[in-house]
Amino acid sequence: VPLPHSLEWTAEREALQDAETAVLAVPTRYFRDVVSGFSGILPPSCGIVSVAKGLDAASRERMTVVARDVLHCERVAALSGPSHAEEVARDIPTAVTVASNDPDHARAVQEMFAGRTFRLYTTNDVAGVEFGGAFKNIAAIAVGVSDGLGFGDNTRAALITRGLAEITRLGCALGARTETFAGLSGMGDLIVTCTSRLSRNRAIGERLGRGESIDEILGSTQQAAEGAWNCAIARTLARERGVDVPVTDEVYALVHEHKRPADAVTSLLQRDLKAE
Amino acid sequence: VPLPHSLEWTAEREALQDAETAVLAVPTRYFRDVVSGFSGILPPSCGIVSVAKGLDAASRERMTVVARDVLHCERVAALSGPSHAEEVARDIPTAVTVASNDPDHARAVQEMFAGRTFRLYTTNDVAGVEFGGAFKNIAAIAVGVSDGLGFGDNTRAALITRGLAEITRLGCALGARTETFAGLSGMGDLIVTCTSRLSRNRAIGERLGRGESIDEILGSTQQAAEGAWNCAIARTLARERGVDVPVTDEVYALVHEHKRPADAVTSLLQRDLKAE
Repeated sequence: VPLPHSLEWTAEREALQDAETAVLAVPTRYFRDVVSGFSGILPPSCGIVSVAKGLDAASRERMTVVARDVLHCERVAALSGPSHAEEVARDIPTAVTVASNDPDHARAVQEMFAGRTFRLYTTNDVAGVEFGGAFKNIAAIAVGVSDGLGFGDNTRAALITRGLAEITRLGCALGARTETFAGLSGMGDLIVTCTSRLSRNRAIGERLGRGESIDEILGSTQQAAEGAWNCAIARTLARERGVDVPVTDEVYALVHEHKRPADAVTSLLQRDLKAE
Repeated sequence: VPLPHSLEWTAEREALQDAETAVLAVPTRYFRDVVSGFSGILPPSCGIVSVAKGLDAASRERMTVVARDVLHCERVAALSGPSHAEEVARDIPTAVTVASNDPDHARAVQEMFAGRTFRLYTTNDVAGVEFGGAFKNIAAIAVGVSDGLGFGDNTRAALITRGLAEITRLGCALGARTETFAGLSGMGDLIVTCTSRLSRNRAIGERLGRGESIDEILGSTQQAAEGAWNCAIARTLARERGVDVPVTDEVYALVHEHKRPADAVTSLLQRDLKAE
């Protein structure tokens, strides 16, 4: 995969040397390589804002952990929430969460980005915000499969609810706080990703549900397929911690083991009758 | 409003005398009057299943409380969740929650209603299940107003997230458990009600957002407008308990004080920047 070579440009290098804040908007698959190009250029005093949604494949780490590791910046924030770019650009009212390990940094980012139709809420649960953003794309594929199979709003709502329970369980086992998953970066982003026509990961699932093969689908899109990339990472993390993740398991089987979509959704919906 | 006089029919009276289970499916506004007609006919041993979603206007009580009060039945259950009847009838996979004060009754209802495409999960938090069903219709009106004003998926997801936080806060202040609101009868039903074209309460909001008056809208529909009826009850309960309910307050202002829709949504979205 070709990486951008923009850092050879002197003007950009100069801009970065004095940067007080840097926004890192790179698909997670290329994040570590691209950000490594800024190492030694960005000052350690620079505040980082990651908007990438996913985990690093090699280390299974969150993007702010990768950024700190590579750039040695002290203040790292994750900005996440229900915010399709197409709508933000059209001034559609939008609200998101910004999480930082430094409350002053969180408030600075909040003020920097806030506008008449774009609101930010602060938290210090960086892990919770990043896990919500990473895992929701997996659930979105499952919901897309249900839509592609012709199931309805009832099915979708049940899958989203089970999906958030699973994301919360796994995220908390990895050190995040429950309440973060009930907020904009958890439930809010999950809802928009699972119900919007603009969602790429939901669209991947919908095409799977309609009978296209995963190779065909991933080969035909230039866009980030975070859910397809991240389901294997999430599955490994869940097994290490002994967390039950049925939605992730089924999406993994769809993407990596060519399981039939109808069988995957049936497995999810036909679990034994039990207490909620 | 004319009430059904079916209890004058001997055949129905006989059926009810031996009933082991009775399903009460009556809009909340007429629930107490209609159910009072069964008093002294249904045996106290009969297990009750309420599927009504809302509170009693006079007493501000839940429907299972009204049913026990009127019928003196010991076992009362509430069945609720994301389950548009139109989809259930078409065998679209659906999952709901059944809550009873008696675990055996909950399991009996679960087995009675379960089918290949209809799943039930049991809980003993009857209050949580009923409050989720009652309050979600209020949030659905707010989301409909946003849709009617032409706002987007981002706005809707933010309102649903804030709506569930508010429902959870109020429900817990009234004795329910937090986790119930994260389940099918809370989050699941809220999502389907706020995102589906089939939702009546969302449709009421959408027509308000497009400029129709509330009198015009309520006058033109024969269907239950639970959210419009229940926002005043929820607002009173919230004030009594000192719970902050901004979504309910704005829906109340829209329905009962003719507030302009754009002003209501702006009030909700333009609250001070703050921690989540």
